[in-house]
Amino acid sequence: MHSLTVELGERSYPIFIGNNILSDINLSEYIVGRQVLIVSNETIAPLYMAKLDMLLTDFCVDHIILPDGEQYKNLEQVNTIFDQLLTCKHNRTTTLIALGGGVVGDMTGFAAACYQRGVNFIQIPTTILAQVDSSVGGKTGVNHPLGKNMIGAFYQPNLVIADIEYFQSLPQRQVAAGIAEIIKYGFIYDADFFVWLEQNISALMAKDAQALSYAVYRSCQIKAEVVAKDEKEMGIRAWLNFGHTFGHAIETHQGYGSWLHGEAVATGMMMAVDLSCRLGWIEPALLQRAKDLLEAAQLPICAPEDMTVDDFLTLMSVDKKVLDGSIRLVLLKELGQATVTADFDRALLHETLSLGKQLAQL
Amino acid sequence: MHSLTVELGERSYPIFIGNNILSDINLSEYIVGRQVLIVSNETIAPLYMAKLDMLLTDFCVDHIILPDGEQYKNLEQVNTIFDQLLTCKHNRTTTLIALGGGVVGDMTGFAAACYQRGVNFIQIPTTILAQVDSSVGGKTGVNHPLGKNMIGAFYQPNLVIADIEYFQSLPQRQVAAGIAEIIKYGFIYDADFFVWLEQNISALMAKDAQALSYAVYRSCQIKAEVVAKDEKEMGIRAWLNFGHTFGHAIETHQGYGSWLHGEAVATGMMMAVDLSCRLGWIEPALLQRAKDLLEAAQLPICAPEDMTVDDFLTLMSVDKKVLDGSIRLVLLKELGQATVTADFDRALLHETLSLGKQLAQL
Repeated sequence: MHSLTVELGERSYPIFIGNNILSDINLSEYIVGRQVLIVSNETIAPLYMAKLDMLLTDFCVDHIILPDGEQYKNLEQVNTIFDQLLTCKHNRTTTLIALGGGVVGDMTGFAAACYQRGVNFIQIPTTILAQVDSSVGGKTGVNHPLGKNMIGAFYQPNLVIADIEYFQSLPQRQVAAGIAEIIKYGFIYDADFFVWLEQNISALMAKDAQALSYAVYRSCQIKAEVVAKDEKEMGIRAWLNFGHTFGHAIETHQGYGSWLHGEAVATGMMMAVDLSCRLGWIEPALLQRAKDLLEAAQLPICAPEDMTVDDFLTLMSVDKKVLDGSIRLVLLKELGQATVTADFDRALLHETLSLGKQLAQL
Repeated sequence: MHSLTVELGERSYPIFIGNNILSDINLSEYIVGRQVLIVSNETIAPLYMAKLDMLLTDFCVDHIILPDGEQYKNLEQVNTIFDQLLTCKHNRTTTLIALGGGVVGDMTGFAAACYQRGVNFIQIPTTILAQVDSSVGGKTGVNHPLGKNMIGAFYQPNLVIADIEYFQSLPQRQVAAGIAEIIKYGFIYDADFFVWLEQNISALMAKDAQALSYAVYRSCQIKAEVVAKDEKEMGIRAWLNFGHTFGHAIETHQGYGSWLHGEAVATGMMMAVDLSCRLGWIEPALLQRAKDLLEAAQLPICAPEDMTVDDFLTLMSVDKKVLDGSIRLVLLKELGQATVTADFDRALLHETLSLGKQLAQL
């Protein structure tokens, strides 16, 4: 079992990573009161809820099962969590446990942040994406019809358990989407890890437990390092949004739940690499390596055909990375080093945004 | 003009208090970006919005006018604030200004806490209650059908302006309700201030500007002291809930908006004093002084006739002061000193809860 600590002063918390580790962890160490609400979704609950329940026989455990999918990540669903907490008379010493993917984690974390102005919160992410991204760093929240993740809070869990076992039931499309976020860490922070990913992409896609454990561990480690340096996203943490400004525009345009988040990020990363290349900051060879790796992970690298440059610009201007009207993007200075900038030629951005045929020139 | 600073490290903020002071304060010092959203309600906006707008001509100002009343303090209304922010493309450097009473302040603060995971926030409370209670200390949030203030966040404003001028348009019933919270500070923290209130209650009820300025200033000072000692309400801050556990039960039972918050708190304080007296912690003479002062402020001191002991116990058990099933109450050890305890004779609580005839024995 790998483990690491996200260093945030009095809000520091541990992450445990490994295959079939849930029963090895003493959950009661991390639960303050007697009440627990497990939040899960209709896909995950039938598979894994009973096992978790068995580890919590010393507590008063209630449950809520949410519908599965990004399109349900909204205030109405969070409100059903509040309904359940209040109906079951949970007080402010209660602990919320998120058992599910990023959507369950984001909504449960936000509910924990807001219920009685903040209660305890444990994350048990069941997807690759949630383990390497949304479970680390305290970003919680929901979507709004006019923009993704526009409503939320910074709120840290007491504990994160990243169990590789859950990936066995994960459809291949979700495995690929999760690997997109893992690849991101190579791009922005660690050229050696990018090379490791190029060498191990087949093992990862085949759900090899050892390869996945290491990839999740290294990803969490990088994210934890970045978040510890910059909890409230004033500087380096913005690197984690690499590919996301483009990606969010795609998700919003296509309607939440149509593209998986990781798929949109993969295409977004390809666009960010493409623009970095057009700006002359990186070599065309890296553009090719990016394309090869993302394709080996069976990820989309071209924006939807029905999205125009104007669609992108409109949707990107409501993205959180926009400061006073100018679009700020996370781009690459070199492999393993990102940069946040609004200082680029808009004409080159337009070329990148009309992606399909441009990338074909590779 | 009085002023004080709420000391909370890097989240410290100033409160300015006085009569007709708005134009004396350089608002632009406290606004970070170019965008401002003023949140107000349909009662206050026609009276005071134009004057505030005139002080903000250097900024891009948008507005949202909410319906007036505690019954609208809910997630749906907060969502209309998000709608407006997103429709007007406000980014994360925006500043929300709450111009209104406690309901506007609580909802605007919660919206500021959650919009893009936290944006700047200025409070301009227009009621006595909001100036001495909900504008100080960072408690924001909304009600849920199953409980009051159950959803929210601790979130500090950048600035609070408490202008006495707004009280001129305040109905007498709201003046009285605000004075209930001022009296609370005497009960729990400052016996001398309680005596001052006994001597000045007529001037306060007559909206004397000098008396009101001092009463608001001293109340904010006490609350700021308490909050600075205990931001997250683990200890002494709970004293501020004096009268509120009973009061919230009354508000919930009667339906939000039927009793004013301050009215319910007045009756709740009377019940807390009554129970403290039954427990032998304070003299019956103080019970009489409490009754006299609250009656001089034209406040109700008896619970609604249609509320049974069981109604109270049921509604109090979902209150945030309940830890693991036992009801914790804020009671008085002496005038000017409160205590939080679950250690009291339940039979005496039952006597207090069947209030009407008991108090008549005075």
